[in-house]
Order: sequence, then C-alpha cells, then structure tokens
Amino acid sequence: MPLPPDHPLIDGRTGRAPLIRAYRGERQPTPPVWFMRQAGRSLPEYRALREGVPMLDSCLDPELASEITLQPVRRHGVDAAIFFSDIVIPLRLAGVDVEIVPGRGPVLDAPVRTAEDVTRLREHVLTPEALKPITEGVARTVSQLGGTPLIGFGGAPFTLAAYLVEGGPSKDHLRARSMMHADPEAWTALMEWTADVTGAFLRAQLLAGASAGQLFDSWAGSLSRSDYRRCVAWASARALDAVRDLEVPLVHFGVGTGEILPDLRDVGVDVVGVDWRIPLDQAAARLGPVPLQGNIDPALLSAPWPVLEAHVRDVIERGRSAPAHVLNLGHGVPADTDPDVLTRLTAFVHGLPAQP
Amino acid sequence: MPLPPDHPLIDGRTGRAPLIRAYRGERQPTPPVWFMRQAGRSLPEYRALREGVPMLDSCLDPELASEITLQPVRRHGVDAAIFFSDIVIPLRLAGVDVEIVPGRGPVLDAPVRTAEDVTRLREHVLTPEALKPITEGVARTVSQLGGTPLIGFGGAPFTLAAYLVEGGPSKDHLRARSMMHADPEAWTALMEWTADVTGAFLRAQLLAGASAGQLFDSWAGSLSRSDYRRCVAWASARALDAVRDLEVPLVHFGVGTGEILPDLRDVGVDVVGVDWRIPLDQAAARLGPVPLQGNIDPALLSAPWPVLEAHVRDVIERGRSAPAHVLNLGHGVPADTDPDVLTRLTAFVHGLPAQP
Repeated sequence: MPLPPDHPLIDGRTGRAPLIRAYRGERQPTPPVWFMRQAGRSLPEYRALREGVPMLDSCLDPELASEITLQPVRRHGVDAAIFFSDIVIPLRLAGVDVEIVPGRGPVLDAPVRTAEDVTRLREHVLTPEALKPITEGVARTVSQLGGTPLIGFGGAPFTLAAYLVEGGPSKDHLRARSMMHADPEAWTALMEWTADVTGAFLRAQLLAGASAGQLFDSWAGSLSRSDYRRCVAWASARALDAVRDLEVPLVHFGVGTGEILPDLRDVGVDVVGVDWRIPLDQAAARLGPVPLQGNIDPALLSAPWPVLEAHVRDVIERGRSAPAHVLNLGHGVPADTDPDVLTRLTAFVHGLPAQP
Repeated sequence: MPLPPDHPLIDGRTGRAPLIRAYRGERQPTPPVWFMRQAGRSLPEYRALREGVPMLDSCLDPELASEITLQPVRRHGVDAAIFFSDIVIPLRLAGVDVEIVPGRGPVLDAPVRTAEDVTRLREHVLTPEALKPITEGVARTVSQLGGTPLIGFGGAPFTLAAYLVEGGPSKDHLRARSMMHADPEAWTALMEWTADVTGAFLRAQLLAGASAGQLFDSWAGSLSRSDYRRCVAWASARALDAVRDLEVPLVHFGVGTGEILPDLRDVGVDVVGVDWRIPLDQAAARLGPVPLQGNIDPALLSAPWPVLEAHVRDVIERGRSAPAHVLNLGHGVPADTDPDVLTRLTAFVHGLPAQP
C-alpha cells in the first residue's frame, strides 16, 4: 500500500525511488529493474576482487561486501542494489561452523539431525556485536548509493533449516522434510531459531540503511502446500515480525512456488517474486492485487537479442496485470552470463516509452 | 480404458494382474503397489551384486539386470517389477559416449551444444542388434516373474536432451532451455532423435514381454507450461507413438509437474504419476477421470511407522478420487531407505480391508 503523502519515509533518501514506489503498489512509467544475483560471479570485476578470498570472508569484510554490492549498480545502472551476502551468514555470525565450498555451496561440519542437535544449536545467539560487519557494510554502501535503494535480504527459515539438517546442498531436502514430520517439536524449535537469526540479520541491514527487504525461500518449492502452511509459513512470518515496525516494503521469493504463491503472500509481505515457470498474468490471477517481481527466464539471457527482447516485452506486458511490477529474473543471474546483456537489457527497459 | 472382455491381451500372462487392471482403469479392492527405484541402491543384495561393476555395464548384462529387477519383487512382494536400467542406456546403445559417474549421474564427454553437434548426434542409430542385451534381460526377467507384471521404462525426450546439452546433471537445465529458444530448429532435430531412441528402447522392452511402459520426464518440472506444450510435449507423444500399437498401458511421470499434469496426460497415456507435492484428490480434480499413480512422500519413509502409516492411509483415501489408483512413492526410493520399511509398507497395503 502507498504510504500517506505526509509519511516521514516518503522524504527519506529513497522514498521516491521508482523501485520503492513500485514495491508500495504505485505503477511506474517503466518497470524498475534489478537482477537477483546481480552482485557476484557474472562480473569480471567481482571475480578479480574475490581472488583468494573465501566467500563468507568476503561477505564479512565491510569494504569488500560494499564494493561488490555497488559494482552492478555502476555497470548496469539498475534501479536497486541488493546487499552482497549469503543466506548462511547469520548462522556463521551466531557461531555455527558453516563454510561455502566452491562449486558445492554451504557445508556444515555437524549437521543438525536430532532434538539434541537442535538444543545445542539454540545455545548459539546472534548478538548485535556479531552483526557489526553487516551494519558497517550496509552503511558504507548506502553512503555511496545516492538515491538508489539498497535491498536487504535474508534466507527464509525453511531454507536455512534445510541446510542445517542436510549439512549441505541436497536434492528434495529429504532429511529436513522428514524431521518436520518425524519430530515436530524439534522441527518447531529449529524453525524458531532460524527465524530469529535471519530476522535479526535482516533487521540489521534495514536499520543500517537498506530501503526494502527480500526473504528468499530457495527450497520452499520442494514442499507440498499443506506442509508449507502447517510447518513453514508461521516461521517465515516470525522472521518478518522482526522488521515490520520499520515499515519498509518486504518481498518474498522462492523457486518453483507456483502452487504456494498465495501462501508466500500471506506471511505478510508487500511484493511477491515469481520464478520463470508461471507467466505474471497467471500469478496475478492467483494472487489478486499485489505488486509482482520477476520473471525473465534466465535461460534466455544467452539467447540472441531479438529472442530475449521479445521475451522481456512479453514479461512486461503480462506484468501489467499486477498493480505494479518490478522487472527481474525468475531466478539468479547464471554464473556464465555475459554482463553486457544485463547492461543492454537495463538500458532497453529504461528506454521503453512510458506507460500510463 | 478396460479392454473388451474377449481381447487377447486379457488372456496374456498378466492381463488379469491387479496392476494392469488398475492401469486400465478398474479400481482394485486394495491399490496395487510398487516403488519407483525399488530395484537398486536401497537393497544390500543389490549393492553386493553391483560391487566393482559400473552402473551402465550392470544394465547391459542381461543376467545381472534381470536379477536386480527381481530382487525387490522377492523381498517386498510388490505388485510389479520395473526393469532395471537407466534412461541414458539408449544413448549408450546408439553409440553416444556417456558414463554414469557415481554420486554425480550421467556425464558426456562431448555435450551437444550446437546445430552441428545435433547433426553429428543424429548420425548415431539405435539398431535392433544393439538392443539385444535389453531384450534378453527382459525375456529372462519375465520368465521368472510368474503372473507379476514387468514395467518397461524410458526417459522422456526432454530429460534425455537436457543431459545431452548440459553434458551432465544440472540445476534448472539452463543450457537445454536456452537452445530451445535460441535455435528452435536444432532443438527440434535433437528432440526427434531422443524421441526415436527412447521409443525404440521402450518398444524393445515391451516386445520382449514387459506388460506396461512408463515414460519418465524427470526434468519437465523446470519448464513453463507454454514451453512444455510448444517445445516438448510433441516429442514425448512421438516417443510413445513407437509403442501405441502394442496396446499396453502407458504411464507418464515427472517431478514438480503439478502445473502441467493435464499436458502429461495429453501426450496420450493411460495413467499419470503424481509427485508428493500435490494431493491425489487435487490431481484428480485437475485431470478428470484418469487412473493415478503415487504419491507417498519419500521423506516419510524414515519417519516413525505411525507417521508413515497415517500418511499412506491419507494417500490411499485421496487416491479414491481417481477411477483407479496404483500406490507408489512421489519420487524414487532414497538410497538410505531401510528396505524393511518398504516390505512392511507393502504388506500393510495388501492387508487393508477390500474397498468397493
């Protein structure tokens, strides 16, 4: 919902930025555009900066994280920055032994498999002190962004829990989904903890100057709707409860979540992100009047320009079924994407004739 | 549809088997049951047999493939055998250089990325001579199965194409989905070829004595519905065209395919398999009167028995929304499944009171 015209946030640094206005439900003359994973592996200047620096160390170095966050804004001229970090950072900052193994993803030495493991996990507390590298990284970024909004982000409790239980990336997240049914009490305790650490992580970014927040539930698409509603949605709502008083727009996104789009909305967010599987007009029909974000198929970034352009025009046209639309991919930028394509795409969208 | 009572197939070896009758749309007193991936890695007798034998070699040794196929029928007393093989076997038999790397899956030395690659690929022909190990393996299996039906199987063209283009397992199958849009002609030529080899593979199994056929489109869930309809469905129909004259029941299954269930049906099959994400009563509502197969959540196989039993009862109850139901998992048996659970589950289902 648009804020009342005299609301103090309107006069903030980014209150009138197209991204924030679209997130609040005001259709913009052309859709604001940013790309999930725009900060990172597709950019040569990122790969140069990261050389020899382990992933999580780069997230915890405020100068590095800030520079990486700014790179795609400078290069592509996108309408938003998204803070460069990783969804397991709050786990690491709470003292959990997690590492990112290149080519594999987050790996834990000691997976959380039993009620006792969960009890031990819950002894880890995420302190404001531990969050300082994040706060500093965000503040440093925001000071250089001018009127461009920074999006803060966090992994949703289920996705974090899946990493914790599996001990690493997994197909279908069987062990996590098994614990959900086999030991509902341990599951609840685990989800409370992950909700609280990711909520604190997101809150730190917003307090330090991020203008919006996005919750990523990367693995929610592996759940049946009834499991999502019963065992997961409450925890995502709890994570967001940590930041609702800040009144910034909140976005919720997961891959393969066509069946649960209304449930993603109903944890209490302003904007729903849609992957590439469902056209935005169908998503709008399922969701009613809520701003949408998405959903260019990342597979088309490597197609010839006329094919990509036709697809982007179609996405924008279908996005007009929603009250407002922020253009994005339906998933993260693939590692081998030619960055010039993203620059061209951004300029193309900004150059479209204004629509009423 | 049930065959007319005087049809010659009725008097065949398995024409009156509960599985085949359910596949033909006749509700059975208790649902026939088998498990995807029942032959294989969860069984200690399988791991013993396979020791030192590479995966694809074991599929091409008729004695070994037959013994592995029979193991779960003996152990669990399931209502069907499924021929032990791999979806890339027809590629290998056509002379494509593909290997299964343990813990990783099928890997190709030379991925098929360009129109020229596709032209070269199409020079490979799958001859009846090359299919002999399959024919022999099936004949040997059928001779020991008594009245229990054997299900033949094949990978769907899209899933095979995804392996060929990516050169190995991949997330989201970006390269394959990109070729689909970037070079539609090459894509069509690739899909024709994969349809024809997988159709020939399935036909060989059915001619040698398999009583039903299942097409696995493991990766179809990564597609938007419009891409599935426009670029994929015709090729799956073409693969099945190779066996329609044999009049055996045909099953179509993919993971994460809730959005395209009617399209899976519409390639022309008798039965639709459903993964664990969608309850069977909802699948029936989307599909109308077609027999369903599924959809126990594999995550629950490691839950305490009462939790699993309640879930199975729920699946069976919801399965009554379909004209007939074959009980199965919503995906393959996980490698670390306790085989005793599958035995107990089969006995439990067979011991349920008969339902009208």
